[in-house]
Amino acid sequence: MEPLTELKQRLAEIADVQRAQSVLAWDMEVWMPPGGQKSRATQLATLEKIAHVRQTDDRIGELLDELEPQRASLDPDSDDACILRAARRDFEKLRRVPAELAGELAQVQAESHQAWVGARETSDFAAFQPWLERILELRRRWIECFAPYDDPYDVVLDDFEEGMRTEDVRAIFATLAPEISALVVAHASDEQDEFMQGPFALDQQEVLSRELIEAFGASWDAFRLDVVVHPFEVTLGVGDVRLTTRYAEDDLTSLFTAMHECGHGLYEWGVSPRLDRTPVAGGGSAALHESQSRLWENVVGRSLPFWRWFYPRVRNAFPDQLGNVPLTDFQRAVNRARRTFIRVDADETSYGLHVILRFELEQELVAGRLAVKDLPDAWNARFEELVGLEVPNDRLGVLQDSHWSTGLFGYFPTYLIGSVLSVQIWEKAREAHPDLEEQFERGEFAELHEWLRSNLYVHGSKFTPAETIERVVGGPIDSQPYLRYLRDKLGTLAAA
Amino acid sequence: MEPLTELKQRLAEIADVQRAQSVLAWDMEVWMPPGGQKSRATQLATLEKIAHVRQTDDRIGELLDELEPQRASLDPDSDDACILRAARRDFEKLRRVPAELAGELAQVQAESHQAWVGARETSDFAAFQPWLERILELRRRWIECFAPYDDPYDVVLDDFEEGMRTEDVRAIFATLAPEISALVVAHASDEQDEFMQGPFALDQQEVLSRELIEAFGASWDAFRLDVVVHPFEVTLGVGDVRLTTRYAEDDLTSLFTAMHECGHGLYEWGVSPRLDRTPVAGGGSAALHESQSRLWENVVGRSLPFWRWFYPRVRNAFPDQLGNVPLTDFQRAVNRARRTFIRVDADETSYGLHVILRFELEQELVAGRLAVKDLPDAWNARFEELVGLEVPNDRLGVLQDSHWSTGLFGYFPTYLIGSVLSVQIWEKAREAHPDLEEQFERGEFAELHEWLRSNLYVHGSKFTPAETIERVVGGPIDSQPYLRYLRDKLGTLAAA
Repeated sequence: MEPLTELKQRLAEIADVQRAQSVLAWDMEVWMPPGGQKSRATQLATLEKIAHVRQTDDRIGELLDELEPQRASLDPDSDDACILRAARRDFEKLRRVPAELAGELAQVQAESHQAWVGARETSDFAAFQPWLERILELRRRWIECFAPYDDPYDVVLDDFEEGMRTEDVRAIFATLAPEISALVVAHASDEQDEFMQGPFALDQQEVLSRELIEAFGASWDAFRLDVVVHPFEVTLGVGDVRLTTRYAEDDLTSLFTAMHECGHGLYEWGVSPRLDRTPVAGGGSAALHESQSRLWENVVGRSLPFWRWFYPRVRNAFPDQLGNVPLTDFQRAVNRARRTFIRVDADETSYGLHVILRFELEQELVAGRLAVKDLPDAWNARFEELVGLEVPNDRLGVLQDSHWSTGLFGYFPTYLIGSVLSVQIWEKAREAHPDLEEQFERGEFAELHEWLRSNLYVHGSKFTPAETIERVVGGPIDSQPYLRYLRDKLGTLAAA
Repeated sequence: MEPLTELKQRLAEIADVQRAQSVLAWDMEVWMPPGGQKSRATQLATLEKIAHVRQTDDRIGELLDELEPQRASLDPDSDDACILRAARRDFEKLRRVPAELAGELAQVQAESHQAWVGARETSDFAAFQPWLERILELRRRWIECFAPYDDPYDVVLDDFEEGMRTEDVRAIFATLAPEISALVVAHASDEQDEFMQGPFALDQQEVLSRELIEAFGASWDAFRLDVVVHPFEVTLGVGDVRLTTRYAEDDLTSLFTAMHECGHGLYEWGVSPRLDRTPVAGGGSAALHESQSRLWENVVGRSLPFWRWFYPRVRNAFPDQLGNVPLTDFQRAVNRARRTFIRVDADETSYGLHVILRFELEQELVAGRLAVKDLPDAWNARFEELVGLEVPNDRLGVLQDSHWSTGLFGYFPTYLIGSVLSVQIWEKAREAHPDLEEQFERGEFAELHEWLRSNLYVHGSKFTPAETIERVVGGPIDSQPYLRYLRDKLGTLAAA
């Protein structure tokens, strides 16, 4: 067999096993009866082991070496050149970590997550502390596998934003932190929008959610929408995109969840089918992925033109609750800046402050400058500075997110970078099609969808995140468009 | 690592991959959007390849050889002895077939199934004929891998009923065919039971189906019930049993489907968890599995004591349709013998004739004594002899079942052997607990379930089918109890 054919065959089978893992994980969250938990964990561990053994097989390294001359002669933008680049990167990263350490991390993370669930329920940080200490100890040993590095945080960040450096994030967040804080100080309100508290019948919320997903361009031939505890999106194959959501009677969050997960789904659905079963078949990076969920949820889904189209439908579904509420009041309500404790409930404006807090603390933890036992105090002090609220307990503070319990460090910053990118990308799309917002008022999103598909989605992760961003917006990450967008929106809402 | 530990570890990982295949297959039938078809087929093929490579790995053979002395010293009824026996059997059977032939069969079967779907829709046997010829040619090459044999049909039968011989089946069916035919001649009726034609609201059918599954002893902590086109049961792990069904407004078949699939599910659910992730974790054979679906569906679920309990509930759900229908009329309707074309719609009595027809034709096809082009005529002639109806077209005749299109020869007889066994097993249970039917009248099924669990289910496939049958009924397969049961039931209904 030709070396390139053999390599691609091996990569394709690894991709198939990973998709199978995703099917098992999706089923576990969506349909599995509770009694299946233990068997499913074992099945997932076996598939993970099979994938890992294949990914780190010596033969992959031999093939990559054999193919080095061929790679050098390829057009660097060609699929094959990009696949070889990504395969080399994945192989070398995975080979750096001894199998025992990877196994120990996986094991401890699973147990630690269980400990976190219990600790959060009872707001008992002390119960979680030894687990987080153990996780950090293992994570630091893992980081050492990638020495030398400039900053240990560079190593964890690289898993989600290849090539991005901690100092880059620091620079972006240094601009954002005071500006967002100032916006929150100027605009945050405790006003209750009674009409946003329902009750909103769940079946009507589902009808509206499905209408949005269709309007954004998804086809039910390739998409599903199901209910889970913690919504997510996962792609199980070409033409097989699974969105999940949740409904609550006392708010309309589900509409934004539907748009958010749909954004993730449209991205993966739009990747060129030529890249299927290769290491570049997913989104460009965690932040690029998040840019698309946030573009559809926030930039589109909280805009006035969008609500000019959709509000009559929502009002029609809930005439008792919204019949007397004018469009401007409704749109203000879904954009209102607030001071809140929980990141996932935060409004679009203050959300960034929650991310900045976590990014700061993660760096200290990973570098070993902050002891785990001192984490709650550090969290509470910095939270008060950034958001202006005193944290009453750890459940509303340091214990709220699952990420650290599963060893996920370096992921949080991608949420805010995604927001920043969402506005940069949106502005380029609007440059190309100045009448997009008029289209939104008519419920038309096809031109935006197509622009995003052909300029961003189609590439998958062929290019590095920085290259992908350069291609789509013509320059590097820039926080100014995002800040301008927030200022404009809040200013307009205040003036209305 | 100890050889036994290593072998069991390898077998456990193979079992995990096979369970993962089942998760992917279940999802494909139940939830997958149509766009996912191609990717899913590829993922399943990759998992199949991974499982096959591992199952036929030289190392398995080495370990089995190393363990031969140890096996000889084990209690032959111990889990380990049974696992070693089954592992040896699986390994040797799989190693007989060259990988190329196995791959070609898998490929042609998938394409042939598509061809059959189209041919059945248009009732066009000629379109399917070349596919069936190719399938048979490959299947005969496959059979040659197992030479020498007494009868080529022994080879295909052994995949579903280990150790059973074609002549055994022939002997059983030779007794059954004239007796069942006589019963159909004596009792078959064209009378229409108008009240059985609904409309029966689908949501009420679901409520009743779930009530039955619960009453039979299943727990929703471990079971699911979902809707598909062709109902089946699959077990995805210890404590993870997936039943599927379908509902139609114009009949109550769904109640029997629920009981049938529940019977399969209770069997697998009852296998000792100690046997999980071994080659003996499933049911004892295809016929033993079918004995349990039919015991719960027919022996229990069509009996008068059962309906004394359940009919008031069904009548309560459908007062307009059944309010004036006495219990005896209803129970007669669900047991009425009829002459029908389609096997899966056949009543309990005439069902066996459909199986006997297929068994006879399969033997001719496999032996090469019947050419595929002559199959429709042979089908129609023998069908008229057995059932007494003239087949008007191949859609209602030879094209009705998917089995042959996917290369499944040797499976059909297990349906009828399952029915025979269901009555033998039922009689043993009633010997142990003479008041079971009084319990049914009160909606109590726990004692029957527990007897089946501890006498049959718990063993999984530790023993050969013949040994398992001997253990549970104290002798070999015997068609007399089944014939007595049919005669008694039809006689009682005729007299009522």
